Formats: sequence, structure tokens, C-alpha cells
Amino acid sequence: MLHSGHNGGRSLRESAFLCLSTMRTIIYHPETPSLQMIDQRQLPAKLDVLQLNTIDEVIHAIRDMAVRGAPAIGITAAFALALAARLSDADDLEELKQDLEDAAQRLSEARPTAVNLRWAIDRMLGLATSFQDIALDSARDKMDQLAQRMADEDVEINRRMAAHGARLLEARATVIHHCNTGALAAVDYGTALGVIRYAHESGKSIHVLVDETRPRLQGARLTAWELEQYGISYDVICDSASGFFLQRGEVDAVFVGADRIAANGDVANKIGTYMLALAARDSGVPFYCVAPRSTFDPDVAQGADISIEQRQASEVLALRLGERPIAPEGASARNPAFDITPYRLVEAFVTEYGLIHPPFITNIPATFKEGQP
Amino acid sequence: MLHSGHNGGRSLRESAFLCLSTMRTIIYHPETPSLQMIDQRQLPAKLDVLQLNTIDEVIHAIRDMAVRGAPAIGITAAFALALAARLSDADDLEELKQDLEDAAQRLSEARPTAVNLRWAIDRMLGLATSFQDIALDSARDKMDQLAQRMADEDVEINRRMAAHGARLLEARATVIHHCNTGALAAVDYGTALGVIRYAHESGKSIHVLVDETRPRLQGARLTAWELEQYGISYDVICDSASGFFLQRGEVDAVFVGADRIAANGDVANKIGTYMLALAARDSGVPFYCVAPRSTFDPDVAQGADISIEQRQASEVLALRLGERPIAPEGASARNPAFDITPYRLVEAFVTEYGLIHPPFITNIPATFKEGQP
Repeated sequence: MLHSGHNGGRSLRESAFLCLSTMRTIIYHPETPSLQMIDQRQLPAKLDVLQLNTIDEVIHAIRDMAVRGAPAIGITAAFALALAARLSDADDLEELKQDLEDAAQRLSEARPTAVNLRWAIDRMLGLATSFQDIALDSARDKMDQLAQRMADEDVEINRRMAAHGARLLEARATVIHHCNTGALAAVDYGTALGVIRYAHESGKSIHVLVDETRPRLQGARLTAWELEQYGISYDVICDSASGFFLQRGEVDAVFVGADRIAANGDVANKIGTYMLALAARDSGVPFYCVAPRSTFDPDVAQGADISIEQRQASEVLALRLGERPIAPEGASARNPAFDITPYRLVEAFVTEYGLIHPPFITNIPATFKEGQP
Repeated sequence: MLHSGHNGGRSLRESAFLCLSTMRTIIYHPETPSLQMIDQRQLPAKLDVLQLNTIDEVIHAIRDMAVRGAPAIGITAAFALALAARLSDADDLEELKQDLEDAAQRLSEARPTAVNLRWAIDRMLGLATSFQDIALDSARDKMDQLAQRMADEDVEINRRMAAHGARLLEARATVIHHCNTGALAAVDYGTALGVIRYAHESGKSIHVLVDETRPRLQGARLTAWELEQYGISYDVICDSASGFFLQRGEVDAVFVGADRIAANGDVANKIGTYMLALAARDSGVPFYCVAPRSTFDPDVAQGADISIEQRQASEVLALRLGERPIAPEGASARNPAFDITPYRLVEAFVTEYGLIHPPFITNIPATFKEGQP
């Protein structure tokens, strides 16, 4: 069941979205230059595509969560720096590098918690810094190419993670999934939801209990929508109900993604992940975190050192932005967007290099040192 | 700040509601005969009052949660049986008893989890069964009087619980509260929210983190509204965020009510209570359950034996009933209304008899055997 969009004739929808096997959340057009992305704020009511022509428009799209999900934000930033190179009216390489650094600085402040944003920016800036004695157009081409390669790698990495993770699921399994970690949260395929999709495509019978994921409802809106596309069985549940199903013995595993993973294995992820992990542990159900190497931040010793984004109260006080408020007039709210799941609650990480088991403090660097996936 | 109602001139609003110290959620009028209650589905947008003239109307109001909260449901059922006696066209006592038993049977099936419903019905039927050689009008008067006495006792019991519970709070404290357990959930004052209110009225500085309480949002809608009336400081939070604040050391105590408490101390309460209790325990914050004797069910050995109401998917799939759905068309959902918090996570029960500490299996009956509060 593919929902009809209200934005007919756009190229992203036609060329990519309708073909689910190559669905991409973000597409870069060097020739325009512009970035196209699915406007995730509008799903599932309509499939709308944003065209972004400036860095400010990209920053607004990230801040306002038109695009969200750690991998998707990272690739968006990479494309944005390619776009910045195209938009720059620099007369020489040094001016171009300065323009890119300015754009990078502004992009990196768009959202604080997901490390993939910083990771992607650093990789793009690393290339820019290396430019010596080449034509400006050649430099711009190289920026385009790296950003596109990073997007392609993201898809490839997701598929590799998914294959590793799917082995954790039996032929019939019920899993709880938090937030959205699917194709929409990445360039394609996804992290935790990629595992579920891969298991389904391998012929396993998977039922997903979809945490609705307040306040922005990425589960009820986006994950349910993706599962409809893939034909995977699911039920939406309130975030607060996952403990009920775990306690009843109905759940075989919990899969989540991550926005940043500290050196000790503490996980920053969408608000509610910590309580879900506690409930999984209390019922003896394994809690898996699916994340690529780019989400691991060796520079942060532990979760308490990760900056947690505090978003606006209005996301809590009205159930959807712009809708009638649920709370009394004048009510106040607090809205941390992420929480920290202590490493002790994580059964294993699923990465493109395979599984990482405890003790994480030694096994994470050991895994990533062993070489290429 | 008292919200203006859209239902001017009604007696409940004028006589009781505007005077907060005697606010009653439910009022019985033997002379009409009818039951008046605040329509909790409409708050906080408007303060509307329902007038119920038949048992079917009362049952619908309970099922549809126009009135909710274990104590409030119990007293509603008591008044409904007084109403049934008034509505009965019985020619003798035996016919009246039969009419009451029929009404009791239908009322007791309105919602399965809260034991107060059954408790109130049994108490009213117990009186009816004792009737011998009295006039029908006298029997009806006695039914009216007992229901009214139960309502008055409920308020008195709540105040006594609140005084016991408030001693658990320091002069400055931040507490998490789940669902709504205030005046709206009882006849007046409330259970867990009564503790918070009593502490505030005693001059303590209390800040409440109000779990919004999906799916029906009793926290964001009702508890926030009550706290506005009482002038108590609060922030609404997503249910999934309570772990974040506990983990950060910002919370001194968690207070919840209960719908039914098993003999071993397992607590059936609004969905999400179990995960909140887990998070409190993980941060070493005491988790208190505030409930009157009528919520303790010695006939149920443990939580697993309590029937958990499964409500309609539409409560999850649209954030408020009748509003635009959040999930894709055709999405399915599961919606358990309650969960079971194991006794091991409960620091103490706050009852009208004082605190009950573990081991609950012996201390609960010992407390209630010691005599009157």
C-alpha cells in the first residue's frame, strides 16, 4: 500500500520513492544545485518533497525535523557542504575553504546530539582542507563526489548491519522498535529497522510492536508507514506500554538505533530508549543497538558527557505542531529529545563490522581497529 | 485560573466547582433523580457537566471515560445503584432487590480492572440484601444515604491519606506523577495528587513533573489542569521522559495511585506505571503508591491474576478521539489500559491507615486488621 502523495510530478518521488528497493530519503542535484528530501513532518498524511537551495534552508530542515535520524542528518550535512561549494562565489581555493568552514560551523550547530552530523562535516572539511593547486570547479566536483560516495556507503553499511542483526532473530519473532530508524532515518534501508526489514526479506515471520515515540511520533507516523510499504506485520503501541508486552513474555528482542555512542558503550538515543532498555532487562529480553561506526564517538568517555538537546515545549503541549493544545492554556513542559541508556543494559551493538559484545570499553575499539568491514 | 465552561448555569459548576475546596466530581440528586458529573473528556478545553438519568447513561459515561479514576468510578457506581432504586417501578422489596442486582451486574462489567467498582457495588448490594419489612421509599432513602455516605467517606479518606503521604516530602521536592489521581479521579481531593496538594497546602515547595499519560492524556489534560487550579508548579513531560529526569537526579519521589492491589502488593495501575517504577528503582528514587483500603483486593493473590482492560485501537491511533489519525490509514494498534507493577518496586503504600512497608503479604492484612483508621 503506497500512500498517494499530494505533490505530484516531483522527481524524487518518481525516480526513487516509488521504487522502494532504491528509496532514498535525500537526493543531491549538483546541476541545480539543490537538495531534495522527503518532508518527514508531513508523513503519513502526505508524501511531500522539499527542494532546498541554500544552507539556511538545509539548517532549518534539520532543526525542524523535516529530515531526522542520525545517518540521514549526517548525509544531509555532507550534501549541504557540496551545495555550499556550488553556491560559493569564491575566487580562489582559500576563499572556497573559508566559505565551507563557515557553512560547516553553522550546520554543526543545527542539532547537538547526533554525532553523525559532526562526523560527516569533518569528513567533507577534511577533503576541502586537502585541496591544493586545483581548479575551483574541480574542487566542487570532488566535494560532490565525496558526498555522493558517503550516501552510497551509508546504504551499503546499512545493508551489512542488517544482515548481521537479522541473524539474531529466529524464524518467528516479535520485536519492539523505538522511534524511526528505517529508510527515512538514513539514506536508505535504515539501522534497527533495516535489521527487521532484512529478516522479513529473508523469509522470517516478524511482528513489530511500534513504539509511537512521543513527542514527534516518529514511530506511529514514520515507522508504521514504512512497515506498511514493506508488508511487515505491526501494531502501534504507546511508549509506556512496551513494558507491559515485555513483562507478558510476548517480545523476543528490542532493536533501537543511536544518535551517539560513548567510548564505554553508553547510548544517546531518542527519549524513551532508556526506559525501554530497563523494561527489556527486567524481563530478560535482549536489547540491541544498531549503529554504524560513524555513530560511535571515541572522544566522549561516557553518556553523561553527551549534550542532550532540549526542544521546545510546544512539541509536548500540542500533540502535533500547529494542532489544538492538549494541556491547559499557559501550561509549561520540558522536552529532552534524547536520553542515555547505560551500557550495562545493552546486550550487543550491531555494526557493519558485526556484533560487539561487552566489555564495550575494550571491544568497541578492538572491533573498529581490526580493519575494514 | 479557572477555565470558563460552555455550559453556563448548571448547578454542579456553580455550587461546587467554583468553590475549589469543596469541588466534587460527582453529585447525586435523589429528587430528580439524576447524577451530575464533570465530563472529563472535555477538559481542559471546556468545563462541561453531564446529567445522567439512566443506568445505561452511567455505564456509557464510565466506559467512555467521562468519569475515570478508581475511587470516582466506585462512587459513581454507588450513586448509580441509588439511582436504580429511584428508577425502579418495583411493587415490593423483592422486586426492588432484583432490579438492583440487574443494575449491579451491568455496572460491574463497565470496566474490569479497578476493584473499587466491585467494592462499591458489593457494599450497596449488601445494604439492599438486608432490607426486610420496610417501605419501598424507606429502602430508597437508605440507598441514597449509604451512597452519599460513601462519597463523603471517600473525601475524608483521601485527606487522611494525603496527610500521611505528605510527610514523605521534604520542604522542597520535585515529584513525578502519573495519570490523574486528583479531585477528578475521586469525589474530591484525590489519592497521589492529594498527597502533593496536601504538601503544597502545608507550605512545602513542590514541583510536579506531570507524565502526560498516553493514550488518553489524563496527565496533560487533567492533572495539569488541576495543578493550575491549586497554584502548584509543574511541567508536563512525555511518559518516556520520566527516566531522563530520574537519572539526572532531579526527582525526589514518585507518587501514583492504583486501580487494584493484589494480596502480595502487586499494583495494577494506568499503563506506564511499571516502566516508571523501574526507572525510579534504577535511580534509587522511592516509588509510592497511594490508595485507600477499597483498592486492595485480598481475593487476588498476585498481579498476574488481575484482568487487564484492552481498550480500542483508536485511542492510540488518533491522539485525541475524533481527531486526525497519526498513523497510516489501516494501521493497527494494541492498547492495554493498565499494567502490573511488581511489589518489589514499591517503596511503600500510603493508605488512610498510614504507610504500609514490605513485606506487603503480611503487612497489608495486618494494617487493615488493626481496626479503623
